[in-house]
Amino acid sequence: MLGPRGGWQALRRCVSLPRAQREVRLRVREALGAREPAGEVKVQGWVRSVRSQKEVLFLHINDGSSLENLQVVADPSLENRDLTFGSAVEVQGKLVKSPHRMQNMELKAETIRVVGPCDTWSFPLKTKERHPLEYVRQFPHLRCRNNTLGSLLRIRSEATAAIHSFFQDNGYVHIHTPIITSNDCEGAGELFQIETSNEAREPAEKTHFFNVPAFLTVSGQLHLEVMAGAFTHVFTFGPTFRAENSQSCRHLAEFYMVEAELSFTESLEDIMQDRLEKTLKNKFVIISYNEAVEILKQASQTFTFKPEWGCDLQTEHEKYLVKHCGEVPVFVINYPYDLKPFYMRDNEDGPQHTVAAVDLLVPGIGELCGGSLREERLPFLESRLQRLGLTDAYQWYLDLRKFGSVPHGGFGMGFERYLQYILGVENIKDVIPFPRFSHSCLL
Amino acid sequence: MLGPRGGWQALRRCVSLPRAQREVRLRVREALGAREPAGEVKVQGWVRSVRSQKEVLFLHINDGSSLENLQVVADPSLENRDLTFGSAVEVQGKLVKSPHRMQNMELKAETIRVVGPCDTWSFPLKTKERHPLEYVRQFPHLRCRNNTLGSLLRIRSEATAAIHSFFQDNGYVHIHTPIITSNDCEGAGELFQIETSNEAREPAEKTHFFNVPAFLTVSGQLHLEVMAGAFTHVFTFGPTFRAENSQSCRHLAEFYMVEAELSFTESLEDIMQDRLEKTLKNKFVIISYNEAVEILKQASQTFTFKPEWGCDLQTEHEKYLVKHCGEVPVFVINYPYDLKPFYMRDNEDGPQHTVAAVDLLVPGIGELCGGSLREERLPFLESRLQRLGLTDAYQWYLDLRKFGSVPHGGFGMGFERYLQYILGVENIKDVIPFPRFSHSCLL
Repeated sequence: MLGPRGGWQALRRCVSLPRAQREVRLRVREALGAREPAGEVKVQGWVRSVRSQKEVLFLHINDGSSLENLQVVADPSLENRDLTFGSAVEVQGKLVKSPHRMQNMELKAETIRVVGPCDTWSFPLKTKERHPLEYVRQFPHLRCRNNTLGSLLRIRSEATAAIHSFFQDNGYVHIHTPIITSNDCEGAGELFQIETSNEAREPAEKTHFFNVPAFLTVSGQLHLEVMAGAFTHVFTFGPTFRAENSQSCRHLAEFYMVEAELSFTESLEDIMQDRLEKTLKNKFVIISYNEAVEILKQASQTFTFKPEWGCDLQTEHEKYLVKHCGEVPVFVINYPYDLKPFYMRDNEDGPQHTVAAVDLLVPGIGELCGGSLREERLPFLESRLQRLGLTDAYQWYLDLRKFGSVPHGGFGMGFERYLQYILGVENIKDVIPFPRFSHSCLL
Repeated sequence: MLGPRGGWQALRRCVSLPRAQREVRLRVREALGAREPAGEVKVQGWVRSVRSQKEVLFLHINDGSSLENLQVVADPSLENRDLTFGSAVEVQGKLVKSPHRMQNMELKAETIRVVGPCDTWSFPLKTKERHPLEYVRQFPHLRCRNNTLGSLLRIRSEATAAIHSFFQDNGYVHIHTPIITSNDCEGAGELFQIETSNEAREPAEKTHFFNVPAFLTVSGQLHLEVMAGAFTHVFTFGPTFRAENSQSCRHLAEFYMVEAELSFTESLEDIMQDRLEKTLKNKFVIISYNEAVEILKQASQTFTFKPEWGCDLQTEHEKYLVKHCGEVPVFVINYPYDLKPFYMRDNEDGPQHTVAAVDLLVPGIGELCGGSLREERLPFLESRLQRLGLTDAYQWYLDLRKFGSVPHGGFGMGFERYLQYILGVENIKDVIPFPRFSHSCLL
């Protein structure tokens, strides 16, 4: 009678509690999905519209369980001053078949209690107004009450659960890689450093809380590699950080990454085919970096950055490549050795020396994923770290190659960019609950 | 034939790849669980023991998919110098019923390839040795190869997935609450502050990256409360931080919390009963803080900290209370108003003024969860923030009470302490992949 499982749980919950009056609490989604009428239920939520007619009062209420609202039908005598857009209400009544085509069920109200009024005059969200995303972004503490943002956050939540299930079902071990680290994985300079607020106040005392300088992680990859020496399939899904001074639509200072590492993997195809193509069910094009540069050189378009072998691909280049390949996702493989970090596997080719790296470029976004085979051969890694003067710092990483090293590789996917891609959301700030970027850390 | 789904996926993977030789890769767990013999399979993993007899060579190999090893039986001619404890191997052969009682299946090897040798002399883990946890803790990059740590990490991964599923199945929206925040939720001083490493280097330039001082979060609660104004059930499961100068067995500088927030919740019972009791299936005792203090005062035991109304419960007090109640989980409710942060709901009692807070104490651990009803009444919150001089900083939080406020509450559970509790692990550093605490941030 009460729709999906949630309804019964609500019922059980009420029965087990010492309440004066037994009540069945229904979520809006449950009420809308109910197959049969039900007597005496309570629905709680926020008022999305009030329409008062001579003989009947219509309310639409929403509790975040669904984009759709539940229509409440009441006697006009139940109207009161506090019953406004944005107010929080508890409605007791009977769930009945709706005579209207628009909805399956509606709630015939017996009592309406305003538990939290809303000062509509100062409330920045207005009924019936379709506020632009730029407008609601100014109110990080209220924007989740906007239909678009609410839907995006529900989808983000579902996508999070789906990613956990996917890896779990495929035998991956989930690893919480550390947020605070003494490493700088990418060798980039865009790091956030951490001190205790005491240290900040008393610079005289020069000791670090962790004895060593500590940073916010830019990637869990090196730590996943540790785990890939004991578990053959591992993944992490957590926050990563870049102190990039960017206000762009595709950069955040705090963002989420899905990263996976696979042991006993000897080709980039393993990483590209097995994981990504299956996930996205789409035709993918694979081109080498060499081919990409040739395509760009032959382009009729003029670029701000002249394409040249040995240089990083810029956003304008990525866009052109995706367009050139027919607006489908494009894997670019085998990047110049000198462009990439020390842990990527040497392809031992030449004279244009490359490593087994891969980036996935997608329409509208550019780089969505990056991956590589990792250098599992001790002598290669030793000589490369030595040339970079990093041998001491990465002794532990060399250890992984001394004790039962295996060919392995992995990839990372920016979760917000993934959401932007599948949802067509232009600004990355709209697919994360509380965006952090340079000059902005609201709440 | 090939056990659970994973086997078939391995098969499909191989078929879809342009390999010279079609091969079926099996994980150790799949091989052990196979119901029928299988010809020509490949198993990859690390050698856990080598036993060479005159007529036969026995190997045990493990790939992290299971605590159990797979026994490999081979001709002694396949032995080689590199086939040692800790080395990484690929074994090709036939999966056959084992004649031994100890295992169901074993692998009759045709070829054994050592893909990564292990320098056993310098490898800190030794075959057959049961290393104490203190010993393996010194090697954060290698300890996951230890049986105990490997098992703990597998269980942590399963528990993570189970927590996500539980909330998902019960209609909660998952929220990634921010790691970097300009708030200090608990009002405690034990904060990590964040600067860009550039700022650290050039103190002349005094501007913050975010324009305001920014900290690592100590709790996602306030941000969950924002979301509880649009979704009635929300949760977060992420890292939180304390710059506590502690080396104890139950404190970390970086740890994980499961936090939930429920709207339209009017009693502590809703929070205690609905969530926790169901989860742990155990008899729970509920006592008030007042009762707890009386119990402590009447104890024959002498405490380092004298129990007195208005003072925080110390670890020794928590332990005594749990013992007094029969070594079962104990909820302590209604704490002194002045002990607790501004957002907890005023019980309006007296003269011993309390708030609707709850802590869950469990045997062997002490505090596992903390929760409260939140103050949803604007005038109460306004006057409290004003007295604390926090009105300006928390204008946004007051807004949540101005626009459709609802009675709500929630709780947080320390994930590592939860793992310690269900697994009986003494030191919290052994239930997290990379422990961070004062003076230590390895890797």
